Amino acid sequence: MGTSIIIPWVKENYGCDVIAVVANVGQDEELNSLEEKALKTGASKVFIEDLRSEFVTDYLWPLIKSGSRYEGTYLLGSAISRPLIARRQIQIAQRENADALVHGCISGSNDEIRFERVYKSFAPQLKVIAPWREWDLKSRRDAVAFAAAHQIPVTTAEAVIYSHDSNIWHMSYEGGILDDPSETLPQDLFERTLDPSDCPDGDSEITIDFEKGIPVGLNGQSIRPVQLIEDLNEIAGTNGVGRVDMVEDGINGMKTRGIYETPGGTLITAAHRELESLVLDRQTRQQKEILSIQYAQLVYEGCWFTPLREALDAFFEKTNEAVTGSVTMSLYKGNLTVKSRNSPKSLYRADNGPAGPENNNRPDTQELNKFLGLSSVVRIRR
Amino acid sequence: MGTSIIIPWVKENYGCDVIAVVANVGQDEELNSLEEKALKTGASKVFIEDLRSEFVTDYLWPLIKSGSRYEGTYLLGSAISRPLIARRQIQIAQRENADALVHGCISGSNDEIRFERVYKSFAPQLKVIAPWREWDLKSRRDAVAFAAAHQIPVTTAEAVIYSHDSNIWHMSYEGGILDDPSETLPQDLFERTLDPSDCPDGDSEITIDFEKGIPVGLNGQSIRPVQLIEDLNEIAGTNGVGRVDMVEDGINGMKTRGIYETPGGTLITAAHRELESLVLDRQTRQQKEILSIQYAQLVYEGCWFTPLREALDAFFEKTNEAVTGSVTMSLYKGNLTVKSRNSPKSLYRADNGPAGPENNNRPDTQELNKFLGLSSVVRIRR
Amino acid sequence: MGTSIIIPWVKENYGCDVIAVVANVGQDEELNSLEEKALKTGASKVFIEDLRSEFVTDYLWPLIKSGSRYEGTYLLGSAISRPLIARRQIQIAQRENADALVHGCISGSNDEIRFERVYKSFAPQLKVIAPWREWDLKSRRDAVAFAAAHQIPVTTAEAVIYSHDSNIWHMSYEGGILDDPSETLPQDLFERTLDPSDCPDGDSEITIDFEKGIPVGLNGQSIRPVQLIEDLNEIAGTNGVGRVDMVEDGINGMKTRGIYETPGGTLITAAHRELESLVLDRQTRQQKEILSIQYAQLVYEGCWFTPLREALDAFFEKTNEAVTGSVTMSLYKGNLTVKSRNSPKSLYRADNGPAGPENNNRPDTQELNKFLGLSSVVRIRR
Amino acid sequence: MGTSIIIPWVKENYGCDVIAVVANVGQDEELNSLEEKALKTGASKVFIEDLRSEFVTDYLWPLIKSGSRYEGTYLLGSAISRPLIARRQIQIAQRENADALVHGCISGSNDEIRFERVYKSFAPQLKVIAPWREWDLKSRRDAVAFAAAHQIPVTTAEAVIYSHDSNIWHMSYEGGILDDPSETLPQDLFERTLDPSDCPDGDSEITIDFEKGIPVGLNGQSIRPVQLIEDLNEIAGTNGVGRVDMVEDGINGMKTRGIYETPGGTLITAAHRELESLVLDRQTRQQKEILSIQYAQLVYEGCWFTPLREALDAFFEKTNEAVTGSVTMSLYKGNLTVKSRNSPKSLYRADNGPAGPENNNRPDTQELNKFLGLSSVVRIRR
Repeated sequence: MGTSIIIPWVKENYGCDVIAVVANVGQDEELNSLEEKALKTGASKVFIEDLRSEFVTDYLWPLIKSGSRYEGTYLLGSAISRPLIARRQIQIAQRENADALVHGCISGSNDEIRFERVYKSFAPQLKVIAPWREWDLKSRRDAVAFAAAHQIPVTTAEAVIYSHDSNIWHMSYEGGILDDPSETLPQDLFERTLDPSDCPDGDSEITIDFEKGIPVGLNGQSIRPVQLIEDLNEIAGTNGVGRVDMVEDGINGMKTRGIYETPGGTLITAAHRELESLVLDRQTRQQKEILSIQYAQLVYEGCWFTPLREALDAFFEKTNEAVTGSVTMSLYKGNLTVKSRNSPKSLYRADNGPAGPENNNRPDTQELNKFLGLSSVVRIRR
Repeated sequence: MGTSIIIPWVKENYGCDVIAVVANVGQDEELNSLEEKALKTGASKVFIEDLRSEFVTDYLWPLIKSGSRYEGTYLLGSAISRPLIARRQIQIAQRENADALVHGCISGSNDEIRFERVYKSFAPQLKVIAPWREWDLKSRRDAVAFAAAHQIPVTTAEAVIYSHDSNIWHMSYEGGILDDPSETLPQDLFERTLDPSDCPDGDSEITIDFEKGIPVGLNGQSIRPVQLIEDLNEIAGTNGVGRVDMVEDGINGMKTRGIYETPGGTLITAAHRELESLVLDRQTRQQKEILSIQYAQLVYEGCWFTPLREALDAFFEKTNEAVTGSVTMSLYKGNLTVKSRNSPKSLYRADNGPAGPENNNRPDTQELNKFLGLSSVVRIRR
Repeated sequence: MGTSIIIPWVKENYGCDVIAVVANVGQDEELNSLEEKALKTGASKVFIEDLRSEFVTDYLWPLIKSGSRYEGTYLLGSAISRPLIARRQIQIAQRENADALVHGCISGSNDEIRFERVYKSFAPQLKVIAPWREWDLKSRRDAVAFAAAHQIPVTTAEAVIYSHDSNIWHMSYEGGILDDPSETLPQDLFERTLDPSDCPDGDSEITIDFEKGIPVGLNGQSIRPVQLIEDLNEIAGTNGVGRVDMVEDGINGMKTRGIYETPGGTLITAAHRELESLVLDRQTRQQKEILSIQYAQLVYEGCWFTPLREALDAFFEKTNEAVTGSVTMSLYKGNLTVKSRNSPKSLYRADNGPAGPENNNRPDTQELNKFLGLSSVVRIRR
Repeated sequence: MGTSIIIPWVKENYGCDVIAVVANVGQDEELNSLEEKALKTGASKVFIEDLRSEFVTDYLWPLIKSGSRYEGTYLLGSAISRPLIARRQIQIAQRENADALVHGCISGSNDEIRFERVYKSFAPQLKVIAPWREWDLKSRRDAVAFAAAHQIPVTTAEAVIYSHDSNIWHMSYEGGILDDPSETLPQDLFERTLDPSDCPDGDSEITIDFEKGIPVGLNGQSIRPVQLIEDLNEIAGTNGVGRVDMVEDGINGMKTRGIYETPGGTLITAAHRELESLVLDRQTRQQKEILSIQYAQLVYEGCWFTPLREALDAFFEKTNEAVTGSVTMSLYKGNLTVKSRNSPKSLYRADNGPAGPENNNRPDTQELNKFLGLSSVVRIRR
């Protein structure tokens, strides 16, 4: 609906050509109809960009390596897509010699901040048009009225009571009763996962293989990134795994209720973490636990294209060098149970002593000098 | 069995009186038979100390307030009991003018370190006798042989294949096949929780009420601490909630597999966290997330009686002043789903702006959609 | 000059009474002439509030206890005064039934954010008038012109080339050449400290006594807080101690050069830190080092009246319980050298073993069971 | 003296050949006489290894990039040399088919732990002989007696009252009165820096150039690493810069007094930090501040060859990509004053807005004053 309204509104108010950009990040929308609609409502051109593969390898894989969950819970499905979309939008604007960038984010929303941070970093000279900051429409209802007045047809999908953001990684829900943290969610809300009580009675067992922190195989078969997530979405969704219902703190400090489905992502994140528990030494694991909190905040706040994100990625890149191996999990009516973790880099020792620097006999006393100018090596048996 | 062997061994090797101390922290053992056995195997005196209430209010409640999970997962059920037990043992030693403290921890184990840290802090002058460091018995098997040679009867419970540590908060399992992180757990291992597939078909709904971070009510009724945990253990256990199977890093850096059940604790921890998400501002919540990692490490390492733990508690005590309200959860075949959070101190604002220092530009409405399937670029002047 | 201009400008533009509030935090200004001038330029009333004692005990002492320096360097002299001033201003506004709060901070400055955060927390209903955001004056020069046009006399002090902010704790300098980090500071800039080359040839020795983290004595005499800082300013200033010249990151991310003098504060901070090194165990000291970074950011950003600041204070309050003792320092031509640290709570042991939880013999191996249902105490010799 | 005694003691007690290894890291000792002495006291072979260049580029430069100071103060001069020395010792042991490694560290000392951690990591199969843990000599005095009994000549240098550890980066002092934190240091203790009161009356100005965090030039001339440190040691030493006298927490938690001279290192560290203040954005700088604390602890504890150190280095490596430019400092009687910072990557903007994600509302001017002596409240409607 934003689509439907924004293009005519911008044309009307700015007297300009509008070039529409549709980023395909795997959302649950018919992209072809979007193109048609954009042209019908006045776009002079439409770009449909398939960003799915780039989204997975350049954004989701680093996220997986970092192990981040915002406020311990949210897998950052919306936040992680924004930098990519905004960046591509800018590239097209530059190629097309556009004067301005338009986004349809609500004033004060997380996404407004996320988009505009990227705009500011890469194209500070381009004007930003944010209709929701500028026009008089104050609500969904107003928007529907505007559409009616301009004879813009509103599809059923647009008239739904809850709004969505979706991509290959996740789907989010908000609006109406959903926003009140004291209210129970409607039974039929979720679209990608079954309710545990509706799941099949048997369990499903899957194995994910990792190489240097990246998931590369499913049940022993190597598999391409986008396909892997799609397959895992299916498996997890069928078994009711991957829902989140939380109260989260927005970038501006405002509390909102966050309702998400990240079925495949939940499996990958859990499996990655299990593998790490086997191959990272204690110090690294505990430091990474803290840095992943920091990373989650950066991603959430739209600070993807920043030196700190890059430096943290360098850290995670290093720790993930050891994260090779496989994890087998069982899924059953909403439960995810790890069955087995295996790695050629495992630090687990069945018999006794561990690896790691902390593993010494500790001294009892301290005294005297250090005679370190000279140390020796010895051949005892000759 | 430690019980059975240690007393005669100490008497034999040190030629001394042995006073047995049994700390009742709610473990799954018959305490009366322990007393009888201690006397039979040579103890000159037996103290049975009911520490359950102190354990809950002075140890578990601060733990809940901190929100700690060791390595993100383990609810610290064994670790948190050690300081209390060791402290009471020392108090009795002092009252009884004892010369030494005996513990039955394996050499190199986490518990050995935890006990001895407390001994060192409060009674550095007392000798520490650690039979497992001193005697020739190298394994459970040896211990059984020693018992046989000394005609000490070994009960069925002692002969079980897996060893346990239990208290009102949790039960842990280790030994044999359990220790290998690549092995699937035996079906019949767990004692306090049903397997999700064995749980009843209906769900159970419960509400926990908190005052300043402490759980004080269940389903609208005020309830005493020990009773609350027992009731929640029952409810969670019946619904298959509260199992953990992880690879954890021991104090000395060695990896071990940790298998735990903390049914009621899982509910309280989840509910507390949910309530915090409603009443803590973003800055506090995110800083607390980091400090709880630190706190978990301290508790795990037996550093309870330290200035840092006390200083962190002061921090958590302050943040918990706002944690008053109630959380309703639904339990179903291993799933814990939050239904509703309510607090008189909620920072959630249905309409608009929240409190908090970062709250400068707040959106006026929250009901609007994000129209991100399509963004646009504009050529204003052509 | 702000004074001189702002009052007439506000009256002219808002057609209202203006009540002036002068916060005495020990700045280098004649407060009486300020009162006279405020009345002359149109204030209907003037409040001169002596906040020095409250400033020291309720703001500077917590700061000292925290050990904070913003970006490792800045002793937060301006930032720490803002919450107190803004809070008092609000109290007067409420008592006087005022409709609005006026501040003279530049648009986009740190101070604008700091003042307005306090306004928003305590008086969100009051209008905020920020002339520098509203009027056409774009620079100091414009302001001087405005004053001339309105026949407002500008004193020499106001016409100085560099601007100051000062209070009992510190003085800051900015403007013109000072702002460029590649430029050497002018020789005659500093007002509270001598240049090392102009200092006396002998050294000065001083001893500061602390009780629970608060400086209470100077050279063996107990002394009141405000007097202590004044005396230390004198001693440090004479010996060239307390200058800072740094590049700092503003709240909005913009780099500015920060030039500060905090003579007495430098001595107290150094002495406090030295005493901590003697009485805090390693874990506490190292955790506090990290939290003080966080605290410095909060203070810098004007987040004084926030739950996180209070929770961190609770942490520091606890760690400071041990910070009792005295530190002797020698000052000589810009150098501050610690001569001696003494504390009844010192953890230093001349002979051998330390305190602290980490001080155990570490185990070599790990195996078997934990026999913790029963521990024992022993009487070896009877 | 360790030298003198250890070789005969090891031969006597282990009946083995002893191969001496002398690591030249730039210490203040005559290496040739060391070789002669080693042979005279029984070594079958002596290796003198010049590690200076490797020490600087592979150990000190990463340390500089990290910005670490242990407990905020100590530049880690001893700690950072241990991994290199131990590693080389192991390499020689392997090449020579030795059975054991010998070190002369006191039992319970930091260095004992540091050496043995490296031994354990790279050569767990080699026996470790630590004479100070094994023999009966309990003190320096005992060692002198042993030497006398074995007719081993003790040089003046070895008989000095205070012991040293030195390398190209630093010199440390300990022993006797030095160890008591309440005692003033002897006047004539320091060897590498003049007392401020003995320094020349004029100041010295130097400029250090950096490329990607590494110091590569002095006063406009490119210079090799070892030479750079030697030159800076001279300049700083002459001007009394680089002394540290602190109470530090040993690896085992015991407090010791740390007395160090790091003249050149102090200059490089300060200059590097200044340059960072110009080129790192706020987020990165503040996160790095926290990670450098962690890094300092790792280095101090001898955990150089660990995954966590490598991962942190990856982080620092990334942030240092921008640290190119030059810093000019003035040295005068113990004072180090930064005169000028310059960088092609500077984020400072004289006019207005900087880079960085937080940079939404930027002030247009920076030259304005803050008029905070007086704020106002307003009664608009009366």
